[in-house]
Amino acid sequence: MAGRAGGSVFLLTDYGLADEFAGVVRASVLRHAPGVPIIDLTHGVTPFDVRAGALALVRAVPHLGPGVVMAVVDPGVGTSRRAIAVSVSDATARDGPHHFVGPDNGLLPWAVEVLGGAEHAVEISPSAVAPLSPSASLPLSTGATFDGRDVFAPATARLWQGAPLAELGDPLDPSDLVRLTPPRISVSPGMVEVEVLWVDRFGNVQLAARPGDATAASLGPELEVFGATTHRAHVVSAFAKLAPGALGLIVDANGHLSLVCDRQSAATVLRVQPGDLVILRAVVSGRQPS
Amino acid sequence: MAGRAGGSVFLLTDYGLADEFAGVVRASVLRHAPGVPIIDLTHGVTPFDVRAGALALVRAVPHLGPGVVMAVVDPGVGTSRRAIAVSVSDATARDGPHHFVGPDNGLLPWAVEVLGGAEHAVEISPSAVAPLSPSASLPLSTGATFDGRDVFAPATARLWQGAPLAELGDPLDPSDLVRLTPPRISVSPGMVEVEVLWVDRFGNVQLAARPGDATAASLGPELEVFGATTHRAHVVSAFAKLAPGALGLIVDANGHLSLVCDRQSAATVLRVQPGDLVILRAVVSGRQPS
Amino acid sequence: MAGRAGGSVFLLTDYGLADEFAGVVRASVLRHAPGVPIIDLTHGVTPFDVRAGALALVRAVPHLGPGVVMAVVDPGVGTSRRAIAVSVSDATARDGPHHFVGPDNGLLPWAVEVLGGAEHAVEISPSAVAPLSPSASLPLSTGATFDGRDVFAPATARLWQGAPLAELGDPLDPSDLVRLTPPRISVSPGMVEVEVLWVDRFGNVQLAARPGDATAASLGPELEVFGATTHRAHVVSAFAKLAPGALGLIVDANGHLSLVCDRQSAATVLRVQPGDLVILRAVVSGRQPS
Repeated sequence: MAGRAGGSVFLLTDYGLADEFAGVVRASVLRHAPGVPIIDLTHGVTPFDVRAGALALVRAVPHLGPGVVMAVVDPGVGTSRRAIAVSVSDATARDGPHHFVGPDNGLLPWAVEVLGGAEHAVEISPSAVAPLSPSASLPLSTGATFDGRDVFAPATARLWQGAPLAELGDPLDPSDLVRLTPPRISVSPGMVEVEVLWVDRFGNVQLAARPGDATAASLGPELEVFGATTHRAHVVSAFAKLAPGALGLIVDANGHLSLVCDRQSAATVLRVQPGDLVILRAVVSGRQPS
Repeated sequence: MAGRAGGSVFLLTDYGLADEFAGVVRASVLRHAPGVPIIDLTHGVTPFDVRAGALALVRAVPHLGPGVVMAVVDPGVGTSRRAIAVSVSDATARDGPHHFVGPDNGLLPWAVEVLGGAEHAVEISPSAVAPLSPSASLPLSTGATFDGRDVFAPATARLWQGAPLAELGDPLDPSDLVRLTPPRISVSPGMVEVEVLWVDRFGNVQLAARPGDATAASLGPELEVFGATTHRAHVVSAFAKLAPGALGLIVDANGHLSLVCDRQSAATVLRVQPGDLVILRAVVSGRQPS
Repeated sequence: MAGRAGGSVFLLTDYGLADEFAGVVRASVLRHAPGVPIIDLTHGVTPFDVRAGALALVRAVPHLGPGVVMAVVDPGVGTSRRAIAVSVSDATARDGPHHFVGPDNGLLPWAVEVLGGAEHAVEISPSAVAPLSPSASLPLSTGATFDGRDVFAPATARLWQGAPLAELGDPLDPSDLVRLTPPRISVSPGMVEVEVLWVDRFGNVQLAARPGDATAASLGPELEVFGATTHRAHVVSAFAKLAPGALGLIVDANGHLSLVCDRQSAATVLRVQPGDLVILRAVVSGRQPS
């Protein structure tokens, strides 16, 4: 549980970029840890969508390098939900992030598991990470609505500087952390029924399934896809191999199966969004879909 | 008026992030001051909305740490409106930003006052902050429409490097700087009539009132709120303490009273936007709102 | 073809900021080149709009300072389109970027020409720029849909660190790089017919014409403008010199002619978008436009 300094600080929030929230958090991290490199993963998580934030972290963490991840999608700010910091073992995190900071609402554990699981966890004590005083004489009574600025940023800065996790608060049993419901997937002969995890900017539809699931279901190179609409799709290796309007099944950059079109939104074609179920069904030879 | 180097450069503009404006300004600051840490406060100020930019700066500056604030919301670019740089006293700015750079249109003074008021001010002379030559052979005739790139960024870089304010141009009397109309607020027994300062990404409605105003008006824990619609509201300490659809009055992270809902837009419920007036009225015991 | 290290890395993509794509690329660049300053030019290029990305690069590069430009607008990812790296001569690039990295689809050559043209070019070999292993045990089968993360970021990091271009892959003849169709412009006495290059956040309409074209056509200080609608316009030096709703012709910060309004969208007034043709016609003395 000794401190490990250095690397970068990686930020993921639902603060958006129109307001100054993200900017103030960046400044607060830098004020508490001069010299720290700060990388915005994204501040564009849909407001309050803890699940979307957790999935984005899962996709990002294998590629980040060392440092501290600070993630805030936090509808429970100001309530008794815990603020937590989690460490990952050197052996499993390797050159990835070794610490995570955020609310205890399911946002962090999936990404922590990608790096081998939590070694230690603490409930952050606001008194242990009291931020530097504001530069100005501010009203004494400010509300507890901006933990990103006042709790998570100072805690993140402390960990980046090498403070041991135990200095931030009392230990928690990592198995007691709040967890989200796992994505739904059901594999049977000739059929995969699976949750949409993510629709990206380009309208690509990432599924909770991986290539092994398609193999287990004996889906071939051509299949039927049932979203809110029904389509024939082909397994392809690149977007540009699809005819205009045609639907493809691709292995994406996160190792998931994704439904895609070429320069067009597959989510619009299928009329699906994250959380919806999609069915992939093998095409029976000689049978045409209606 | 001696130069004070170091800290970060903090950027706030209405340039948006779709075009390369903000990126070119970042690059220009870094080109003129290699090694400077650059923090984007936001580039999402509503185009030309000087008041919104000024208020965002006020909220941000107490939490930034040392450095130079460069702010550009500048409908008068290319006219005779002055470009200014302002310094704040070490004694009052403490570990906050010591210099501000931007147009003389009211954008800066409120934030400067938060840090104790202007110590010195100058009108930036474009010749004193001539930018480095473009790397390419460009047409000679480029217009004066991008002072962020050509005037404010080099001036900001110079100040960050420790140049005395006086090197940037001729002195101005700080009391001559353009100022915006102060936010409207009227407090009477049982009633606060007050301007909406800000509607954030989450739809929270920040008011120009502070807790002391509610106390002065003897508003109790329950009140009536008149926006474009009328609602009963309760004083709460956290968003999540509100029932679905219910309106709350909270002390926000800037020490202002804010009207809020839980995971829903209070601005949509009240149908208000920045600049509108809202009335908070004490509930008379036994009386029901219509 | 010796390596030239240092400066910054400048990023331009169509990844948007809602997803974590841009964040993962930033992290990947920093992971492969610790200490590198990273400047986002923009990630807001319209999806798949190679021409818009190329034009934004052209506008930005004269003002960037030294370093490596990594640009990704890449509808052909995963196909046989080449990944390329291009160097510019010290003599012509001067203190601008000396290297460009991106897909061979026309995105880079215009910006390279602004800096004097390509000195050398290579086709990036994915094996030569193999990224660091993910920190986690990921599925073996990930698809080739995120070259920004897996190919362009490591290549960019290598060049920033001073690797010679030749280490990244086999040489290409720079004259073989894919090029876009040049912007259309036709100048005749009293008339300029010209392509709209860009509509910015403020609705300003940048044209492919420069002041010399207006002079060559003998356009005077007053002219008629034909977009989807027809308007009288005046040559002005600043937005604020225009009456409300009036259309102006300005020399913009890139040395182009732009059609503008004061605090209003000229693109909305003219109903034009990038790629449209606009006609500027001299006003014949005494003649009134219909």
